[in-house]
Amino acid sequence: MNKQQLFEQIQLKKSFLCIGLDPVLEKLPKHLLKYEDPILEFNKQLIDATHDLCVAYKPNTAFYESRGVKGWETLVKTWQHIPKDQFTIADAKRGDIGNTSAMYAEAFFNEESSAMSFDSITVAPYMGKDSVSPFLNHPNKWVILLALTSNPGSQDFQTQQSNEQLLYEQVIKTSATWANSDQLMYVVGATKAQEFENIRRLAPDHFLLVPGVGAQGGDLAAVCKYGLNKQCGLLINAARSIIYASSGEDFAEAARAEALALQQEMEQLLKAAQLL
Amino acid sequence: MNKQQLFEQIQLKKSFLCIGLDPVLEKLPKHLLKYEDPILEFNKQLIDATHDLCVAYKPNTAFYESRGVKGWETLVKTWQHIPKDQFTIADAKRGDIGNTSAMYAEAFFNEESSAMSFDSITVAPYMGKDSVSPFLNHPNKWVILLALTSNPGSQDFQTQQSNEQLLYEQVIKTSATWANSDQLMYVVGATKAQEFENIRRLAPDHFLLVPGVGAQGGDLAAVCKYGLNKQCGLLINAARSIIYASSGEDFAEAARAEALALQQEMEQLLKAAQLL
Repeated sequence: MNKQQLFEQIQLKKSFLCIGLDPVLEKLPKHLLKYEDPILEFNKQLIDATHDLCVAYKPNTAFYESRGVKGWETLVKTWQHIPKDQFTIADAKRGDIGNTSAMYAEAFFNEESSAMSFDSITVAPYMGKDSVSPFLNHPNKWVILLALTSNPGSQDFQTQQSNEQLLYEQVIKTSATWANSDQLMYVVGATKAQEFENIRRLAPDHFLLVPGVGAQGGDLAAVCKYGLNKQCGLLINAARSIIYASSGEDFAEAARAEALALQQEMEQLLKAAQLL
Repeated sequence: MNKQQLFEQIQLKKSFLCIGLDPVLEKLPKHLLKYEDPILEFNKQLIDATHDLCVAYKPNTAFYESRGVKGWETLVKTWQHIPKDQFTIADAKRGDIGNTSAMYAEAFFNEESSAMSFDSITVAPYMGKDSVSPFLNHPNKWVILLALTSNPGSQDFQTQQSNEQLLYEQVIKTSATWANSDQLMYVVGATKAQEFENIRRLAPDHFLLVPGVGAQGGDLAAVCKYGLNKQCGLLINAARSIIYASSGEDFAEAARAEALALQQEMEQLLKAAQLL
């Protein structure tokens, strides 16, 4: 999916919601345990109940890898169940030397190799340009580079001084020379709303993937005040607040209600910004 | 495996060689293609032919993930085939917020969850302390943190000024407060032999995992001159130069010959440093 198509989906659905599919077996509604693959059933019902309210789904690969081979099977089948009008994000935080990143690109972008072809993958910037470029060699695929994350550890390096700027600022400036906003997005944590104004100066046209709204405490209106651009430019991720909205048999309906509340808030914010 | 046990293995085998198991189907000897899982057969024969000459095996997860579910199965069976006296490294370059890194730790450290239990995992430092700590919560398991890598992109951020030092220096200094040298190692590329003296000032007691000897052009003697410490403190990784030493039916013997040459050079270097 290219940038214009993503913006069209945002306008069509009046939403820039991304739903994080990060399931843990112990937290699943008990009635799902009778299925052969309870996590897959959980994901399928969540997707079926919410796909008209969101524009993206983001499985975090750790939650699947933790279950070994059967978890990887669940990830493949989850990807296969996501409707084709959704922007799909493999939240994998990968990155290695060039020939190895090329293999990760096969893993997440090449359906013939791995039975999955996500639109995008999250990548860690520490190893620099040649760790990122192999992903960009795939046409119409995206790198979502970690810039400023929402966790406490973001203070350890990302916000330290680097060449008279902060490291995350340097990551944005340097990586913007590797690809333009048609293939590159940034991860920016919503717990840092005051930083969005600064980030928009460095990356006015890029989409930003924003985790941390909901369970992690971010404020949607504050993020939008500084983060919206002329093609929306934001994908707001919510995971736990939606997928665990209820632990009962009504979990999918409850997830839909949470997603609907966010979609309605987003619709108002898009209208106020004259993007609808 | 703890640090003392690792040093004992190094003394026993007179070797600090780590063999990288990074197989690509297209590069395999043709006679292996008749097997149901040619990559697993390749890995098994390599391990059987070399395990008395090395102290560690390091599968890079990208090469398995690129083949989807069947690749993940090969990774599990490869880990299961590695003798228990070997130090095993999941070269996975992971790292995410705390609850997600905890899931990656399940994936690579908890055999009940994933059917694999590596001794260690490579981790990217960009997300800071809480992205690393969940791995350290597993007793006797190790984090091998990226410090100074061997690829061209290491110049983009790792060697940039950060708080009046270089970023990789800051990564070493800061992370050394998270764990001691009993659970933490660093990745330091062998193409940077002149930097080892500096790194040993910052991390005198830590083991360093050193890729880049062989196909990537690093010099073993130069690395040892500055890198050896009183418990050896080095794991030197070689992959392509060993695993692809021959593309014929004699690939395992050829791999053994390459490994033996490195082991013999290492034995001399250990003797010269009075570590045997």
